[in-house]
Amino acid sequence: MTEETLNGASIGAGALLSVLREGPARTRTELVELTGLARTTVSQRLDALLRHRWVVAADTSTSSGGRPAAAFAFNRAARLVLAADLGVTHHRVAITDLGTTVLAERTADVPIDREPESTLAWLAQTFAELLAESGYDLANVCGAGIGLPGPVEYSTGRPVSPPLMPGWDRFPVPEWLGERLGVPVLVDNDVNIMALGEHWVGYPEADQLIFVKIGTGIGCGIISDGRLHRGAQGAAGDIGHIRVVDADEVVCHCGNTGCVEAVAGSAALAARITASGVLAKDGRDVVRLLDLGDPEVVHLVRQAGRETGDVLASIVNFFNPGAIVIGGDIAEAGEHFLAGVREVIYKRSLPLATRHLRIQASKLGDHAGIIGAAVMVIEHVLAPQAVDTTVVV
Amino acid sequence: MTEETLNGASIGAGALLSVLREGPARTRTELVELTGLARTTVSQRLDALLRHRWVVAADTSTSSGGRPAAAFAFNRAARLVLAADLGVTHHRVAITDLGTTVLAERTADVPIDREPESTLAWLAQTFAELLAESGYDLANVCGAGIGLPGPVEYSTGRPVSPPLMPGWDRFPVPEWLGERLGVPVLVDNDVNIMALGEHWVGYPEADQLIFVKIGTGIGCGIISDGRLHRGAQGAAGDIGHIRVVDADEVVCHCGNTGCVEAVAGSAALAARITASGVLAKDGRDVVRLLDLGDPEVVHLVRQAGRETGDVLASIVNFFNPGAIVIGGDIAEAGEHFLAGVREVIYKRSLPLATRHLRIQASKLGDHAGIIGAAVMVIEHVLAPQAVDTTVVV
Repeated sequence: MTEETLNGASIGAGALLSVLREGPARTRTELVELTGLARTTVSQRLDALLRHRWVVAADTSTSSGGRPAAAFAFNRAARLVLAADLGVTHHRVAITDLGTTVLAERTADVPIDREPESTLAWLAQTFAELLAESGYDLANVCGAGIGLPGPVEYSTGRPVSPPLMPGWDRFPVPEWLGERLGVPVLVDNDVNIMALGEHWVGYPEADQLIFVKIGTGIGCGIISDGRLHRGAQGAAGDIGHIRVVDADEVVCHCGNTGCVEAVAGSAALAARITASGVLAKDGRDVVRLLDLGDPEVVHLVRQAGRETGDVLASIVNFFNPGAIVIGGDIAEAGEHFLAGVREVIYKRSLPLATRHLRIQASKLGDHAGIIGAAVMVIEHVLAPQAVDTTVVV
Repeated sequence: MTEETLNGASIGAGALLSVLREGPARTRTELVELTGLARTTVSQRLDALLRHRWVVAADTSTSSGGRPAAAFAFNRAARLVLAADLGVTHHRVAITDLGTTVLAERTADVPIDREPESTLAWLAQTFAELLAESGYDLANVCGAGIGLPGPVEYSTGRPVSPPLMPGWDRFPVPEWLGERLGVPVLVDNDVNIMALGEHWVGYPEADQLIFVKIGTGIGCGIISDGRLHRGAQGAAGDIGHIRVVDADEVVCHCGNTGCVEAVAGSAALAARITASGVLAKDGRDVVRLLDLGDPEVVHLVRQAGRETGDVLASIVNFFNPGAIVIGGDIAEAGEHFLAGVREVIYKRSLPLATRHLRIQASKLGDHAGIIGAAVMVIEHVLAPQAVDTTVVV
């Protein structure tokens, strides 16, 4: 049958699925009321969704007595999602259901700065192994989501001059991997997908959210009105080179001075701690020393929090987020870094913008990336128009 | 008849109007193709739109010969919009059509810091006079849009602790004025509506746009993915108190030091120019001296541009806008201020974020506010679901 469309959105099975996915199980009558569709149309489309197992009959026990009406619920297990969070050396690969529950996962250390084909062939192989080991079938997979450590042009899924993986510039990741996997492949910057994961699973009520990742570099992902804000060139969130007040003597690899990541990133912090007389090679060492409670280390971590807070205070005035979520080993290792961030934001940002502002550590930790990668696929696959082209009604 | 709805959007006459409003005149056949609606449905709904004059028969001359098919076009003159841009002392009030063309306007100087009732009574009276003088009827008005110089909670249209008009705190502007005018009233912060006006009329292709107003205060309006980003508390864009590097000796009225508006706002600039030995009372004096080409004034204006650029460079890295539009007398008086802004943004922002960035003076000048106020009403009134409840199909 033909479908009515409005602004490109097909008014088919997708409308039913939207209602079911975001709420409790519904009866036929409730679905008629909630969608405004005719009863016969609802029945036809429900049949198709049931046939394809997107929807299942739900528990119909009620407290009101009488014969319970049949109810229908979204089936989170209807399809599988492949998710990967690729880092510069450390990767996490997973299979999830449509509710972002991780069904199987694996981590690995493989340098990403080789040619993209070998890394992606390894990734395809890892997906295949994970599926086989856990008894799932590729035929049930609805898509793959990949996070990469560099700028990505979201519309094409291609990395754009990524500094840490120069061989990947403009490589057609979705086409190359899609051909091998036989499913749609979506690619985005790693910090963007982490923001998506934290928003969906950790802070679903915060429609204006900033996720900040503190590593050797410092970057953020931005949720504006519940959706990722990617900016005009997909470069939004690249805050590592914003200048910190009173740090003009620090030269950054970008050629400017006083950039926040050159001052407060984990490598910069390790160097500062080493200069203070306590040897620290990298962020992991900083976390270890922080756990030992070394007062000079605590002092320097808190100071790095203040310097990061200086940049975030400006962003709070500009963007007025409802939540700032901070991830990365050092920020997640206790409250010292966050305390420094909060101190400066409350000092420098406007009262109206901080009155209800939450500044929290990541809830998902090192799973934010794969969960966000899965969310990216789920949002794409379950968009009403996508369901209508998948489910033949 | 009943209407099908999807996620609250009614699939009625509004869908037809969306297509016609954003494109050229269309034939019945084209409308069937573009909306996906059945031919009989299109005809029914077109009849209703024609009856209410939202749509008119268009010029049907074609070069292909033969009997031309009847075509239909959106009627910009179908309704009138009341628009007001209220400042601290200076106000602009206008009537526009649905295409934001100003049909009549008036400016006035009335202090706004009295109780809201007297200002709003004056405004209602001014709207009535403008309508009467230009021969229009209130019955043809579809809504009023008001910009106010302070924070506004958009969902209720109420000012929230506005520092320049303290008596207006939580005053129900839409209800009070709506009762007198008999049309829906929408209220927003003045800089937000200026951003809306510049985006719709001046830079429609820039879906990520920042409009910065340089006055005694400095603030901005933010367009993210084509829509106003208001932030979690409606406080987004309040950039006047972001700290400028190397200006720690300047104390701001907010109690902090180095705030950009205390350094580079028009009053601060006038004070600096006066301190350099050339008397300047306010921003108007600065513009006058700038027109005379005084080298010391040019130097100080360019320096204020650099200091503003320092704040905007951070925002460019964070937000990656496609366009920055700068308004306010001093920014619009020649290229000196903008040159300072551009110099620092190109120096401090990342190459990917500045490659295609446009940094321009306001195209609408002192009309940005009323045009944006009209846009706010037009977007509201012509949203598909709004049309469906207005036009009885």
